[in-house]
Amino acid sequence: MTKVTAQLSVSLDGFYAGPRHEGDGDWMASAEAAAFFRLTRWMTGAAAWRERQGFAGGERDVNSEVIGEAFEAAGAYVMGRRMADGGEEPWGEEPPFHAPVFVVTHRPRPTLVRRGGTSFTYVTEGLAHAVERAKDAAGGKDVAIAGGGSLVRQVLAAGLLDELELHVVPVVLGTGLRLLDADLGLGEREGVELVPTRVLHTPDVTHLRYRVRGRAPLLADGGGDGTGE
Amino acid sequence: MTKVTAQLSVSLDGFYAGPRHEGDGDWMASAEAAAFFRLTRWMTGAAAWRERQGFAGGERDVNSEVIGEAFEAAGAYVMGRRMADGGEEPWGEEPPFHAPVFVVTHRPRPTLVRRGGTSFTYVTEGLAHAVERAKDAAGGKDVAIAGGGSLVRQVLAAGLLDELELHVVPVVLGTGLRLLDADLGLGEREGVELVPTRVLHTPDVTHLRYRVRGRAPLLADGGGDGTGE
Repeated sequence: MTKVTAQLSVSLDGFYAGPRHEGDGDWMASAEAAAFFRLTRWMTGAAAWRERQGFAGGERDVNSEVIGEAFEAAGAYVMGRRMADGGEEPWGEEPPFHAPVFVVTHRPRPTLVRRGGTSFTYVTEGLAHAVERAKDAAGGKDVAIAGGGSLVRQVLAAGLLDELELHVVPVVLGTGLRLLDADLGLGEREGVELVPTRVLHTPDVTHLRYRVRGRAPLLADGGGDGTGE
Repeated sequence: MTKVTAQLSVSLDGFYAGPRHEGDGDWMASAEAAAFFRLTRWMTGAAAWRERQGFAGGERDVNSEVIGEAFEAAGAYVMGRRMADGGEEPWGEEPPFHAPVFVVTHRPRPTLVRRGGTSFTYVTEGLAHAVERAKDAAGGKDVAIAGGGSLVRQVLAAGLLDELELHVVPVVLGTGLRLLDADLGLGEREGVELVPTRVLHTPDVTHLRYRVRGRAPLLADGGGDGTGE
């Protein structure tokens, strides 16, 4: 069955990038990017990542397996508009997705077809509709929420996410763009309950994978958490 | 050598309790407590925890070992004033610490001696002084920062913490008291670099232990992170 999945590299304090870069300056030189590059450093040396970027070499380790598996599992992607705009030029003629990508946006635009199986379809009917389109296109594989972080948060808040994997990088940033924040819209005595399904540990990053069970009242006793499981 | 350690149960989004309880109402019935009890649920059924509370029974599992080991390693504690005040009554005549506790406070007060080896000494000369007092009293064991969360954050910000262990509970809370937040005082292109030293995984909680290396500029390349290791 097609699952909706998301994964993101975060600091131990939950940031996926530095403070938001505003204005016309060079994003690559921004504090937002500096933190992002620190958090994704574990990926850039991995063979599975380099292959998708068209580079040779790289380490064939656990981290590479995690990346390769994620690319393999995704039959379609959903992406935020800011990430799609930002990636359009650097990804070039053959973006690393090799699958249909559905971009959540307010601006209609004809589908952009790239080499290697990647296409960008611009969906103006909202997030839930984009997820449905991606499910239809995934051919039985998973729908991966490609990011950015605010889109992942929206998908979780909307109850559309089945699996969340955080790649926790051993650094504390103190400031920046936070994946899980107040606009999840949870009540004071309510949480999103998760089930840890896999933990992989390397010196550079800890991979924490969870199945999302859904919203439930906070209960202190060990007898249940209100989700009926 | 005496290490300064801290450990705290947190949600996947980094909260150690719900939104701060203000005023005179019953803390136990507050939203702050509801989240705190959800996050510490994994402890209350563990044999090592129950023993220290004077209760029989409980599970002898990995979680119990983690708790027992933490109690065993600590030769002295440093504690925030709010936690010490809040615990004074419920901990009763024999608090679970069985070691000297140094409370960081502005209000002088005579040392309070309890049964089982626990004493509370009120230190008004600041955090660093309290940590020094605790080191002297630890008899070669570790100094554990008992909490609350804001004290742990202050100790990390002051560069006094050697080891941090987070017990990550599989729930997202969206709001509450956050362990790692902006008042760490880090610059935009600076982080506290950590080294993961142990990961233990159970269905109820994931234990992530880190050695604290210290502040360093954020570097993207794999060649180093500025800490000289």
